[in-house]
Amino acid sequence: MAQGNISDTEREGFYKVLYSRRDIRKFRSGKVPDATVEKILNAAHAAPSVGLSQPWRFIMIRSLETRNRVKELFSGVNTDQKIRITDLKRQELYDSLKLEGIMESDFNLAVVCEPPPEGRFTLGAGTIPQTIRDSVCLAIQNLWLAARAEGVGVGWVSILPQGQIESILELPPSVQLIAYLCVGYPEEFEDKPMLETIGWGKRLPLKDLVMTEKWIG
Amino acid sequence: MAQGNISDTEREGFYKVLYSRRDIRKFRSGKVPDATVEKILNAAHAAPSVGLSQPWRFIMIRSLETRNRVKELFSGVNTDQKIRITDLKRQELYDSLKLEGIMESDFNLAVVCEPPPEGRFTLGAGTIPQTIRDSVCLAIQNLWLAARAEGVGVGWVSILPQGQIESILELPPSVQLIAYLCVGYPEEFEDKPMLETIGWGKRLPLKDLVMTEKWIG
Repeated sequence: MAQGNISDTEREGFYKVLYSRRDIRKFRSGKVPDATVEKILNAAHAAPSVGLSQPWRFIMIRSLETRNRVKELFSGVNTDQKIRITDLKRQELYDSLKLEGIMESDFNLAVVCEPPPEGRFTLGAGTIPQTIRDSVCLAIQNLWLAARAEGVGVGWVSILPQGQIESILELPPSVQLIAYLCVGYPEEFEDKPMLETIGWGKRLPLKDLVMTEKWIG
Repeated sequence: MAQGNISDTEREGFYKVLYSRRDIRKFRSGKVPDATVEKILNAAHAAPSVGLSQPWRFIMIRSLETRNRVKELFSGVNTDQKIRITDLKRQELYDSLKLEGIMESDFNLAVVCEPPPEGRFTLGAGTIPQTIRDSVCLAIQNLWLAARAEGVGVGWVSILPQGQIESILELPPSVQLIAYLCVGYPEEFEDKPMLETIGWGKRLPLKDLVMTEKWIG
């Protein structure tokens, strides 16, 4: 049955992409064609944004020198993160994880937020300015899914010192790093998120996340 | 050609959903079946989250009393927003816009963020804690797209006093409202975002949003 002109087949294709998207840390070699990169970025750019502000900007990073600097920063803060884990078995498990593919991915992609100029009225962002940043995240999920549709893997590296990455990318003070992504062809799209597979955490039952009318503590 | 097991047909279905998603403010009557709501929420729950934190929570609001209170709060801040527009023609245009479907939609859905308990180690969120909130936004985009796949419309009402909505929903201090959504069957999925159609803003060319290696001011 068509739902708002989406046929069963189209809807199944959509869900297949959505449910098989993964955070990718293991990449195989292979250049993502420019036309594919453009399709993925166009999908991001089709995201909703508060007041049509379109605050997302994309910085494609191929330079090995830049990536090396980012990788070193990652390694530094990652060691610092590791020693915060008090359970030693869990610390060992953490240490065994591959958490990024900065050097092996085809390219790195910094997704940054350039908010509308100070003082300009942005429809819908007056009471909750955070919605500008949120718009960039909506675009990132579009990008992540479109990449999956194209067989391209995306991994979000969140263990980074934000300010130092912003310096490397020479972002002006008003522009903020939202996500540092690794993009390229993955070794595989696994059936489950890696953290579920290794037992780091469990998927919560949906029913525990849904409430009616108000918060139930 | 299959891309990571996604066929051409599946990929086309995915893109059709992605590009025909809209922010919906005009709803027709009709109850979204519970099974469809569950599919949409499951799609949200399949989003990536930092350290598998799954910080998203969903509050389904059907009560007309609650909705009335939210609508009144919207109206109050909306008037305040309107008078900030100094260009009178633009103010008139703003005033003519329908910006929410709080009362007419089938239900309202508050998407809130419950961060992991203070002191608990969350993998990947140690250096940029904002990524917890960002995860909720990724889930919202999954939800928005899955709704579109099901022929269901979603509108994000961002012109609201956040703290007062949080009080109405009785959120504990650690839990934050991320999005207040209206959900139901739409009058239509328009070809373009409404703000583009009426000339409020223009879609930026993708090439203006993409940089290489570093920020180019």
